[in-house]
Amino acid sequence: MDDLVNTVKQHLDSIEGVTKVVVAYSGGVDSHVLLHACSILRQQLKSLFFSAVYIDHGLHDDSVHWSEHCKKITAELGFPFHSIQVNAQDKHGDGPEQAARVARYAALSTFIDKHSVLLTAQHEDDQAETLMLQLLRGAGVDGLASMPSFNQFNAGFISRPLLRVSKQHILHYAKNKGLKWVEDSSNYDVSYDRNFLRQEVIPLIQSRWPAFSKTTARSASHCAEASKVLAELSKELLSDSVEHELSIQLLAGNKEETQRLMIREWLKTQGVRLPSKKILQQIQSMLKIDSNKPTLIAWADHQVRLFDNRLFYTPKTEQLILHKVKWCGEVLTLPNLLGILTRTTAVGEGIDKVLWDSSTTSVRYRLGGERIKLAKRSGSKALKKLLNEEKIFPWVRDSIPLIYLDDHLVAVANLWLDERFLAKEGEQGYVIEWDHPDWRIK
Amino acid sequence: MDDLVNTVKQHLDSIEGVTKVVVAYSGGVDSHVLLHACSILRQQLKSLFFSAVYIDHGLHDDSVHWSEHCKKITAELGFPFHSIQVNAQDKHGDGPEQAARVARYAALSTFIDKHSVLLTAQHEDDQAETLMLQLLRGAGVDGLASMPSFNQFNAGFISRPLLRVSKQHILHYAKNKGLKWVEDSSNYDVSYDRNFLRQEVIPLIQSRWPAFSKTTARSASHCAEASKVLAELSKELLSDSVEHELSIQLLAGNKEETQRLMIREWLKTQGVRLPSKKILQQIQSMLKIDSNKPTLIAWADHQVRLFDNRLFYTPKTEQLILHKVKWCGEVLTLPNLLGILTRTTAVGEGIDKVLWDSSTTSVRYRLGGERIKLAKRSGSKALKKLLNEEKIFPWVRDSIPLIYLDDHLVAVANLWLDERFLAKEGEQGYVIEWDHPDWRIK
Repeated sequence: MDDLVNTVKQHLDSIEGVTKVVVAYSGGVDSHVLLHACSILRQQLKSLFFSAVYIDHGLHDDSVHWSEHCKKITAELGFPFHSIQVNAQDKHGDGPEQAARVARYAALSTFIDKHSVLLTAQHEDDQAETLMLQLLRGAGVDGLASMPSFNQFNAGFISRPLLRVSKQHILHYAKNKGLKWVEDSSNYDVSYDRNFLRQEVIPLIQSRWPAFSKTTARSASHCAEASKVLAELSKELLSDSVEHELSIQLLAGNKEETQRLMIREWLKTQGVRLPSKKILQQIQSMLKIDSNKPTLIAWADHQVRLFDNRLFYTPKTEQLILHKVKWCGEVLTLPNLLGILTRTTAVGEGIDKVLWDSSTTSVRYRLGGERIKLAKRSGSKALKKLLNEEKIFPWVRDSIPLIYLDDHLVAVANLWLDERFLAKEGEQGYVIEWDHPDWRIK
Repeated sequence: MDDLVNTVKQHLDSIEGVTKVVVAYSGGVDSHVLLHACSILRQQLKSLFFSAVYIDHGLHDDSVHWSEHCKKITAELGFPFHSIQVNAQDKHGDGPEQAARVARYAALSTFIDKHSVLLTAQHEDDQAETLMLQLLRGAGVDGLASMPSFNQFNAGFISRPLLRVSKQHILHYAKNKGLKWVEDSSNYDVSYDRNFLRQEVIPLIQSRWPAFSKTTARSASHCAEASKVLAELSKELLSDSVEHELSIQLLAGNKEETQRLMIREWLKTQGVRLPSKKILQQIQSMLKIDSNKPTLIAWADHQVRLFDNRLFYTPKTEQLILHKVKWCGEVLTLPNLLGILTRTTAVGEGIDKVLWDSSTTSVRYRLGGERIKLAKRSGSKALKKLLNEEKIFPWVRDSIPLIYLDDHLVAVANLWLDERFLAKEGEQGYVIEWDHPDWRIK
């Protein structure tokens, strides 16, 4: 059996629980060779059901012609065939290549259930290009790992059995078997980043180092291995960590590099992509035993805050100017997404109804210096002190609604009431509820 | 202060316990700029003693002229100056660049005691080249980390403060300060790998992606970070492991990738460099619960063996043909480095002197089927069984000297004596000692 066919077989053999193999077939030489290899393996692997899918990007005038070609070839090789039209629009400004890629994989994913594996024909030279593109982004180990040879995809899997097979080997196979394929002229359009690498840069490197793609794909594979180990390690290290927060204690026992790994992985769970080492070091400076250490590191759209020996991630918010709002007792949606206030009537609790009804009620926000008289505690207390005692996040303290009757602070959201305004036993009162996002240490 | 000078200062500030700064100065623009930055910093960093060293590789006709130039510049800038001649011979066949590099660092190391840091002038573009060279070797994360910005060196340290500074910035600084430097014409000789990258490949990449060196150096820095974390992790995971062996149990609890990391790092401690993933997977196959699993994986000059639920590393040895050796009682150096036999006289122990003296004594090696009668055990025992009981490494069993009187096996090295040949109480005997390398499970 040809080495290449054997390589595909080994990949298929190593996947457990799969009954359907879907070959992504473009009509080009790479996927034609992959399809041909599958047509040979089909004789042996009788428990597997093979089919082929063509994705028509509609980018070229002759794409309909290609679809016809693919239909003809798959018929000759005896594969069920599907042709799917996609409309690749560059909505996110990531460039036409990326947009086409996203649209292609989205269309392919519809064929992959939990019993299916998608086979794609990327080879060693493609992998080397991918690694070079990652270098051009300054990627870390995860990115340099480039394309995985096997991964989960939709409900099933994706496998790239030719990832360690050279383009030369693929061309040799195709000629040897007398295959006829279509050439995508856009492969030669060097306005695409990948094509510039393929047509200009890599041939120059290979003129001196013919094994460039092979060694580079090997480096990618080493990075994939390292990336898995690091992901596993950080998962273990972060296991106790609550979603939005990261305990300083959890970080403290580790070396600086490991701390940065943990912070990076934690931020990844918050949807923050690869912060620079400088940012990570700034966040690390929050761990110091130093009264002047920072409590907020902000960059791009992100903020990491230190409070109560934990790090908290929050998206960056604009500094809000909070106005006084009049409140007549209706369900009150506070401006700037600061929650909803409701007032219900009760007996012997809440704010004295008679006092409320005879005053002008308003919702205000903290300016500093507020005080309140609590039941069972001597004297009036500074609001600042109460907020500290309750470990309210410092960054939400100015967003807590304060209820005023005329100019008297009578309630701090649903946290505290001034005892001088409390409804007396047997008399009617208003109970305030505040529906809001998390803002207190759990 | 210029950004570049400030960068050098930050590097120097971050090194603790150093009083001497040695600048590696070649006369080229990079190290001239570094030296110039140091001449500015010297005013502020009065606790540090600065000097400059020039390494004369003797490879160029004008290297004496360069040395003169360096002497003049360092005198102008007020630095103590040393010029060292080295003779870079490519003894290991690693190429002239690598030979020069090794000779250069060896010479520089003589200046670095525990209070010293060596400053070298490699910059961002050098780092990008180094990473490309590592890709051409198929390096893993450790290699892709490229040059460290800070490391231990000899008894002290090495620092590369310009590693994130571009060549363009360096040239701008040099022109701005009116510096005069020498150009090494060999920098343009594309027969050197690095120069081919510098002169041909990287300018082509930069024609499309001007930030190539910057992003690539960033990737290198990410890899350095990952490399440190992985080294730390594997050190922790391997902490219980004895030098030559690796317990299967220690490996068993980990994911496959982590196992490979552990095996790779363990082999590194044995002086084995980066085995391929395929070899690592073969070694992993020894961990299976499978009676047909391999017990020996051999590649290049290396062997890993499985025994008693542990992996053992040994250099590959040739299959020895062990002959029978006559022994008259002298100190006997066994052939093939198999140890030294000595015979001492004792009373009431060892082999009966009268029997020995009346026989022809020889040293032989195991052929299979040998048996011996031990004191306090019933019947004669198969040697194979005794070796199993004692957990003697299988791969050394055929190298244990067997002592024969005529054709009777009387002693297995200093392990076992046949009771029928023992010296009787009060009578003279010969005690055998065998001086040999480790060959038994500790």
